[in-house]
Amino acid sequence: MATAGKVIKCRAAVAWEPNVPLMMEEIEVAPPQEGEIRIKVVATGVCHTDLYHLFEGKDKRGFPTVLGHEGAGVVESVGPGVTDFKPGDKVIPLFLSQCGECKFCKCPKTNLCDCSWSSKYYDIMSDPTTRFTCRGRPILQFMGTSTFSEYTVINQIAVAKIHDDAPLHRVCLLGCGISTGYGAAVNTAGVTPGSVCAVFGLGAVGLAAVMGCKNAGASRIFAVDINEQKFEKAKVFGATDVLNPKAYNKPISEVLAELTNGGVDFSLECVGNTEVMRTALESCVKGWGVSVLVGWTDVKDFSAKPIQLISGKTWKGSLFGGFKSKDSVPNLVCDYMTGKIKLDEFITHKMSLEQVNDAINLMKTGDWYICHSHLSVFEVNIVKNKVLIFVSYLTAFDAS
Amino acid sequence: MATAGKVIKCRAAVAWEPNVPLMMEEIEVAPPQEGEIRIKVVATGVCHTDLYHLFEGKDKRGFPTVLGHEGAGVVESVGPGVTDFKPGDKVIPLFLSQCGECKFCKCPKTNLCDCSWSSKYYDIMSDPTTRFTCRGRPILQFMGTSTFSEYTVINQIAVAKIHDDAPLHRVCLLGCGISTGYGAAVNTAGVTPGSVCAVFGLGAVGLAAVMGCKNAGASRIFAVDINEQKFEKAKVFGATDVLNPKAYNKPISEVLAELTNGGVDFSLECVGNTEVMRTALESCVKGWGVSVLVGWTDVKDFSAKPIQLISGKTWKGSLFGGFKSKDSVPNLVCDYMTGKIKLDEFITHKMSLEQVNDAINLMKTGDWYICHSHLSVFEVNIVKNKVLIFVSYLTAFDAS
Repeated sequence: MATAGKVIKCRAAVAWEPNVPLMMEEIEVAPPQEGEIRIKVVATGVCHTDLYHLFEGKDKRGFPTVLGHEGAGVVESVGPGVTDFKPGDKVIPLFLSQCGECKFCKCPKTNLCDCSWSSKYYDIMSDPTTRFTCRGRPILQFMGTSTFSEYTVINQIAVAKIHDDAPLHRVCLLGCGISTGYGAAVNTAGVTPGSVCAVFGLGAVGLAAVMGCKNAGASRIFAVDINEQKFEKAKVFGATDVLNPKAYNKPISEVLAELTNGGVDFSLECVGNTEVMRTALESCVKGWGVSVLVGWTDVKDFSAKPIQLISGKTWKGSLFGGFKSKDSVPNLVCDYMTGKIKLDEFITHKMSLEQVNDAINLMKTGDWYICHSHLSVFEVNIVKNKVLIFVSYLTAFDAS
Repeated sequence: MATAGKVIKCRAAVAWEPNVPLMMEEIEVAPPQEGEIRIKVVATGVCHTDLYHLFEGKDKRGFPTVLGHEGAGVVESVGPGVTDFKPGDKVIPLFLSQCGECKFCKCPKTNLCDCSWSSKYYDIMSDPTTRFTCRGRPILQFMGTSTFSEYTVINQIAVAKIHDDAPLHRVCLLGCGISTGYGAAVNTAGVTPGSVCAVFGLGAVGLAAVMGCKNAGASRIFAVDINEQKFEKAKVFGATDVLNPKAYNKPISEVLAELTNGGVDFSLECVGNTEVMRTALESCVKGWGVSVLVGWTDVKDFSAKPIQLISGKTWKGSLFGGFKSKDSVPNLVCDYMTGKIKLDEFITHKMSLEQVNDAINLMKTGDWYICHSHLSVFEVNIVKNKVLIFVSYLTAFDAS
């Protein structure tokens, strides 16, 4: 493209410091260096992890930065040594890389990567520098992706090439939340045909977990939330039973034990609330029950009585649903295109990138905010410089 | 035998109430009823679970009782309907039954049994009554086994028939502690050939876990304890490296991470200390590390930061090493007789049943006592009315 090899000036939402609104700025995006790809961002979601960094992260070294890690776009140009991508390719940026060379990438049991943003550097490129500047200052690249920008530069180990016909304003959701919830059920929990499952928290991640349970063949799927408005949507994704813990005068784990003759085979915590994590484990049947942490928090410890594990239960967790990112995301895109997984149903609102602070305020004021969830709640869709934000379902689960 | 069908009067150590010494008494042992077996106890160990009931159990309804659940003996007589046992058979009483009929027994994933002592009744027989009386009072049967008596009566679903040539004063250890630690490694953790393991706490359970890691093919086994006197014995069971956390000025999890390029593949907590449980999980490598709770406590919650599981680790636990009891104990006896597993090496002292309070005092004053461990520390060996107690290795691990 005509811009190849040149600095691109474009619009981006810059987080100059914690706890203040993002500023729409013109930034400079440098050409990709060795092994890097410059991407025109076409669509992006907003995840609570972005907001967590903005409002709750304690490390001010992470600013100024451009947030956003749930996007999709088109390759604008590639740096030296990049052979697997070419301008025009549709791609999804990956906050979890897959270098293919480290001991984690070579192990089939995990999707972690030693070269990933979280393992190696903090909000910077792999060399380690950044490709963003604004008003003469370097700007960090949050999670290595920075999709709240019209252009971004990402190392090729953190980019998935997807089907040419993929609708970017839908499949961008596979960059984080939907893959996370879906994979937690099909990969991490390993839900088996005929099993009984419970999903706690019906935000986008939880709904995706419900979908994973259904696709894995579960015979009964309890969808649990304190906001009953979400129950109809949960049924769309496959929930067979819906439960509001506030409707009972005993712990929901006891309710589930009574309804299932001892507890569920698999439970998934999709809130990020340590009390719900305990409840999800306690809701499992002894002997073989598996509970998976999907929601994220680093504020508190999760905890339980040792008998919960001594009695044969297993407590697990995963990042990005356990999917090896570069290998799996293209397949998930195809699964969407062939109808195996749903994406459209997660989206309820559209907003422009210029309105990103409105989107953030909607997230902050939503009652989901009590729960520090790792949720894809918004989708910012940039199409032909028209930026749209889709608001998907919120999580408002509280076990207390 | 001449005693069949009659009440047997014999010696037993009765716990009349919590926190007082056991009393050597003459008790009456009723004939076995439908499905029950009366056993002449030949050897028995003392496990911390016995002492926990005596000194820390809060439920005084559990008294008066006869403690002991790690024994071996010979069938004296059988009740109506018992076809798989006959007088003279060598047997090991099982605190965890295997009825073969419940949903847990029918599931290959678990060794729990719905008819077990812990699931069904509290310190009583299955009908539910007791076969013991003393001074005109009914005496409970702790864990359904009560091996601190010359005779006991047990339901056939909680008795394993073992090899005729098995030395009862050794294989009694398979009734609890050794099976628990060994199985936690080979069954629950599923230690794989070439893997790197760490065992925290080198009491009998921990040493058995070390043996399990070695037999499963681990290439490196770290034995961790604050009492370095145990290190020599740990090497006998297969430890390749020994670590004293007090010898370092940083957390032992960090020391292990440095020594293993990121952490161990499998860790086993054999203490029953919730801080050590956390340390054991934190010592695992991200991505695929598996940590197993073997030690027992119900005093505190165990806890960790969610990232420990989100990063791909698994936290598990088991009772009795995950072994289906009736099926597995006879095989473990054969494994001992063919040299696959060691038992002799666990034993260091001998005492008589009349000295049971001395044995208990030794346990109480031993520094292992800080850790509420599920340990086989003593073996009380009753042979031809000469009662011997063997003191095996103590656990004194403290992460603080």
